[in-house]
Amino acid sequence: MSHQGRTCYIKETMQTTATLIDVESVMQLTDDYLKAYCQQRSLEAVKLGASYVRLWQSIESVLTAGGKRLRPFMVLATYQAFRPNSDLKAILPAAVAHELIHAAMLIHDDIIDRDTVRHGQKNIAGQYDEHYGPFVGSGDERRHMSLSAALLAGDALIADAHRMLRKADLPAKLLDQAEEIFNTAIFEVIGGELLDTEMSFLPKGTVSAHTISRYKTAGYSFIGPITTGALLAEAPEEAVTTLYEFSEILGVGYQLRDDLLGTFGDEAVTGKSTVNDIIEGKQTHLIEQFDRLATPEQAGEFAGIFHHHDADAAALERAKVLLQESGAQAAVEQEIDHLKDEAYSKLTQLALSEASRQLYESLIERCLSRGQ
Amino acid sequence: MSHQGRTCYIKETMQTTATLIDVESVMQLTDDYLKAYCQQRSLEAVKLGASYVRLWQSIESVLTAGGKRLRPFMVLATYQAFRPNSDLKAILPAAVAHELIHAAMLIHDDIIDRDTVRHGQKNIAGQYDEHYGPFVGSGDERRHMSLSAALLAGDALIADAHRMLRKADLPAKLLDQAEEIFNTAIFEVIGGELLDTEMSFLPKGTVSAHTISRYKTAGYSFIGPITTGALLAEAPEEAVTTLYEFSEILGVGYQLRDDLLGTFGDEAVTGKSTVNDIIEGKQTHLIEQFDRLATPEQAGEFAGIFHHHDADAAALERAKVLLQESGAQAAVEQEIDHLKDEAYSKLTQLALSEASRQLYESLIERCLSRGQ
Repeated sequence: MSHQGRTCYIKETMQTTATLIDVESVMQLTDDYLKAYCQQRSLEAVKLGASYVRLWQSIESVLTAGGKRLRPFMVLATYQAFRPNSDLKAILPAAVAHELIHAAMLIHDDIIDRDTVRHGQKNIAGQYDEHYGPFVGSGDERRHMSLSAALLAGDALIADAHRMLRKADLPAKLLDQAEEIFNTAIFEVIGGELLDTEMSFLPKGTVSAHTISRYKTAGYSFIGPITTGALLAEAPEEAVTTLYEFSEILGVGYQLRDDLLGTFGDEAVTGKSTVNDIIEGKQTHLIEQFDRLATPEQAGEFAGIFHHHDADAAALERAKVLLQESGAQAAVEQEIDHLKDEAYSKLTQLALSEASRQLYESLIERCLSRGQ
Repeated sequence: MSHQGRTCYIKETMQTTATLIDVESVMQLTDDYLKAYCQQRSLEAVKLGASYVRLWQSIESVLTAGGKRLRPFMVLATYQAFRPNSDLKAILPAAVAHELIHAAMLIHDDIIDRDTVRHGQKNIAGQYDEHYGPFVGSGDERRHMSLSAALLAGDALIADAHRMLRKADLPAKLLDQAEEIFNTAIFEVIGGELLDTEMSFLPKGTVSAHTISRYKTAGYSFIGPITTGALLAEAPEEAVTTLYEFSEILGVGYQLRDDLLGTFGDEAVTGKSTVNDIIEGKQTHLIEQFDRLATPEQAGEFAGIFHHHDADAAALERAKVLLQESGAQAAVEQEIDHLKDEAYSKLTQLALSEASRQLYESLIERCLSRGQ
């Protein structure tokens, strides 16, 4: 879920219209809601004992460690686009539920990736590895026990995200629909995660990078939140369909941009290494384009660097040059440009207020444009 | 979730009344429902690719590999106790949801325990370890990847169990209540699982075996299903409360009986080793009683065998004798007898048909009596 390192700042657009909720307010609302939720759980955990309270404190530290709360924002902003001047408090739990399932997926993603740090902070497994230190001598054993705690934490959040969704103060019929979308998004992200994991070792071509972008990123990070907001606002059916297509385009494009930033981005801005994908042999869109476009010479030279854990800095820089010279980078930029056009075209099909239109345009620009 | 190896056969009682559903019918209904569910998911997985279809086939093989379907049975039988002659089809999804969350918990439990076999068959991780064989050379790496697939499978089932619960054809208000019970049961079993895991290495006395029985076993295996059936049937509030207490007693007693069977049972009947708990140093009720009752000599001798992976057969038999001679076994039997009395006493507080009363009495006998 690599897109976490970056987000779509749309503050400036939003400030032009006082009636629309802004990114900062959503961050505050989401943080407050998640904090209250964790504190409630910690209290309820007391009857099981201090060990369980500790797990909830660990969960709280991870849930409230920041994050742009892009998913709740998309739920709320879309809801508002079709229900101007409505009280957002009623649907807030449904919006935050999308953030909670995201958090659960990140926790389990970190188990799969064997990461103990996220956003520069110890994740749940990292915290437990330290906590279990005095009790479990063997590093391997301690790591397994720490991952087990993180596994259970993620499970709790998956279950609670469903309950949170139903806490929205809306008719049961609407919540049933929202839960269907939610369920589909989770079904898709789990499949996308499986495919992404297997891509690292299954024969090349078994899975396409596009499929992974669609199901691992677009589904639960864009389609889920945006169509949830639209459905809960009882937007016209055609608008929901158009927003579905819009968010699918946006999500896939977001992943393409993320792939490019993963190799050609500014580490100081993205906070992520620009050589890691090359060292790890990640089969991104960029690599698929390279495979399609590279000359045999370029392909041969690249194969000597890509997915070699001992590649040195000069070789890694050379790999980047090959990705450019082959035309792969330009091809992905072209794909993104095409998706951007499509996204704008979808927007013209929606009857939106000027403020909401600007908001979505800002989303497109911030997610897909080059100036990251 | 060790109680899976045994169940409460109550067929003979049930056959005396044609109107009550019997265990075999519930097994059939549950199997059919789960099979249809998995096949639907396999179809939906096609759009993500063959890899995801395979995961669902693996899930199906595990979900339909048998099992006594005790949880759906308790939901349906309790519903029927308060709604005789009702159509059980309407609430079947809510009953099966309890089985599905159980399956999810077992899948994740196996990850924590690093087991690849359950009920003599390869579990999901076991199946994937074989599947990934040709692609992932390193055993450690392959094991990690297999566990990752199992992790994702469990996640999908936790999410889908919530959706399944809502598929019951009942008023939203009742389903909201059922979901609250469901959520509490999951919150509790996750905590119970954490405590159980930590009990193996945290200092003795940090967690009591009773707490684990209450939260790892009684909560989601007894209280959840029985109170769900009662609430969905709109049983009187006092009846729900009494059934809550009844199922809590039954669940804790079941775990006590399971602990005894884990050491003094007939392996041919339980299908489980009677020395494993001793070798692994499992802190059961039985061990807690031993710690309380043993003479210093008995304690000293026992300490030389308990939790020693190199203990031989004679030593292990000697440990069993010490558990008897110390009075620990008898003390646990006494606890069970006491719980049994309490359970019967709870039943007298309920206005039940003769058939339903016999059913619950049969549940008590089969779960708590010595003749296993």
